[in-house]
Amino acid sequence: VLVSEIGEFGLIRLLAQEFAIPYPPVKAASTRGLLVPLGDDAVVSQRRDAAVIWTTDTMVAGVHFLPGVTSWRDVGWKALAVNLSDIAAMGGTPNLALVTLVLPAEFRVEDAVELYKGLHEAATAYDVTLGGGDMVRGPTFCITVALSGLAYTPRLGEARVLSRGAARPGDVVAVSGTLGDSAGGVRLLSEGAPIKTKAQKLLRQAHERPQPRVTLGKAAVRASVRCGIDVSDGLVQDLGHIARASGVGIRVDGARVPVSDALREVFPSEALTLALSGGEDYEIVVIGARAAVEGLIGATDTPLTVIGEVEQSEEPFVVVEDEGRRIPLPRGGWDHFSGA
Amino acid sequence: VLVSEIGEFGLIRLLAQEFAIPYPPVKAASTRGLLVPLGDDAVVSQRRDAAVIWTTDTMVAGVHFLPGVTSWRDVGWKALAVNLSDIAAMGGTPNLALVTLVLPAEFRVEDAVELYKGLHEAATAYDVTLGGGDMVRGPTFCITVALSGLAYTPRLGEARVLSRGAARPGDVVAVSGTLGDSAGGVRLLSEGAPIKTKAQKLLRQAHERPQPRVTLGKAAVRASVRCGIDVSDGLVQDLGHIARASGVGIRVDGARVPVSDALREVFPSEALTLALSGGEDYEIVVIGARAAVEGLIGATDTPLTVIGEVEQSEEPFVVVEDEGRRIPLPRGGWDHFSGA
Repeated sequence: VLVSEIGEFGLIRLLAQEFAIPYPPVKAASTRGLLVPLGDDAVVSQRRDAAVIWTTDTMVAGVHFLPGVTSWRDVGWKALAVNLSDIAAMGGTPNLALVTLVLPAEFRVEDAVELYKGLHEAATAYDVTLGGGDMVRGPTFCITVALSGLAYTPRLGEARVLSRGAARPGDVVAVSGTLGDSAGGVRLLSEGAPIKTKAQKLLRQAHERPQPRVTLGKAAVRASVRCGIDVSDGLVQDLGHIARASGVGIRVDGARVPVSDALREVFPSEALTLALSGGEDYEIVVIGARAAVEGLIGATDTPLTVIGEVEQSEEPFVVVEDEGRRIPLPRGGWDHFSGA
Repeated sequence: VLVSEIGEFGLIRLLAQEFAIPYPPVKAASTRGLLVPLGDDAVVSQRRDAAVIWTTDTMVAGVHFLPGVTSWRDVGWKALAVNLSDIAAMGGTPNLALVTLVLPAEFRVEDAVELYKGLHEAATAYDVTLGGGDMVRGPTFCITVALSGLAYTPRLGEARVLSRGAARPGDVVAVSGTLGDSAGGVRLLSEGAPIKTKAQKLLRQAHERPQPRVTLGKAAVRASVRCGIDVSDGLVQDLGHIARASGVGIRVDGARVPVSDALREVFPSEALTLALSGGEDYEIVVIGARAAVEGLIGATDTPLTVIGEVEQSEEPFVVVEDEGRRIPLPRGGWDHFSGA
């Protein structure tokens, strides 16, 4: 069945049925955390006394994923996950998501249902309310998620977030999980090679089912860590954002950058390069006083590794060293228009 | 200059320069109403003790507007305006917008600047902060705006919004401005006829530069009006949303539906049909007790006309009558997939 055959309202009705949401909105129906039922002109949160965090990210078919390679369910998961990662990088608690779809007329209803299953899985895993959005016709599939969260706000205190501009000389730099797996997964998928071994499957999964580090981000802001970013463009480029925003230099010990056994097995000679500049890791970097950052190691289930430190510098810089020798950096990371 | 020649960061830098926003984000820079400078992982509002309203809408080139016909500046204006209209229909105060662009590689930088000028004009006119967003490459131009606003929240009271499910038998129905002008404008533009007369220009402007009724929505919620919707799908279809959500019938007096002189002049025989089912008016319907609704007439600069009333009914319905005779309704309004 194509979406053009059942129409927008037909599709909304079907999805509402699938996920047991009252639609069309009925009198007295309500959704957890919302002041009015879904299907109004806009969603309205219950009143809360906290600063609101907001982010948005888009995925376009053929650009951010390959239809026919990545399942629609994984596309749904990832579309929410990449936004969750931005909230995690601010130390916030995700709250409410709006989903906008651009669908070609020939898009299959079954695929739309799979997509929503993935969105729903991520929403459930991270305790987020899916609060409606918009659905329009267009030549190319695009999904845009706008996600709001709440900033940690101590009673009677000011709201507190992890920000890019808060790194200070003497701070230590730590990163969650392992880096480069997602970039390894992209490479396997784009080469079209069969994905068979456990290691290959782990890389693919890192790319298609990222696990945003919300718990760690929340713990970090409560532990008075000041600075954070999620690793989406690639470690070096993302540290560059921090170096510029904070007006500091960052020195990374290449030997400490966490690389998975799977990545070393599949791409033995390129593992570190992928880890430094691969992108789409959706791990988070936290930067703060040594005691605060080291106190986070083991405080949550999320692995956290200290990889470097912050230095005073007139000119912002990022260097990666291996036993004191500087590793030459490729012009790494993403620029969405001018190249890979 | 094409966006692919200067890259994403180049384009962001250029736009930031154009609108005097510090970029890359620098230490100590801040933007009105935001806790951290633009360019972080997400935007963070200043803490406010109010319920947050959220909405999102997308425009796709070739579907929602014709490139080469509608200027990029007007596309920018309208992309924000249609979202402002949703906030207006809740009686909220618009606050913060995130803008997501899908841009083809061959998109011209000059057009991106024009687009942002239009966004900026609307943001300035309605006192909204443009809080960043996302920019990705894709085959077709799309713009998605996610807009947050604040619900009217009396001191010590519960947040109050205009909702679709709050119409009650005995209520009166009123609509702002005039209806059908935008649909008339669409028809002129799609016919490609020269647009010369003052009346023709007014219709075009109604379509390309809608004026969301934020002031009226805010006044309505403060005047204890309970129910509202913006006219985006077409009056009859939008009243149908209310009839279903509220479980009521709605009777409209066709002779009272406000139609502009311009629409009567350009489309004399079809003016009422366009007004009833044209869509994209971005006027608002307010429904509530007679005294509350009539008290709004003249209370703001926005024209407001009582057009009908709400009746008790087992089955939700909308009828339009002319001197007691029922006007047959075309299956009006929009369904974005199954046809215009």
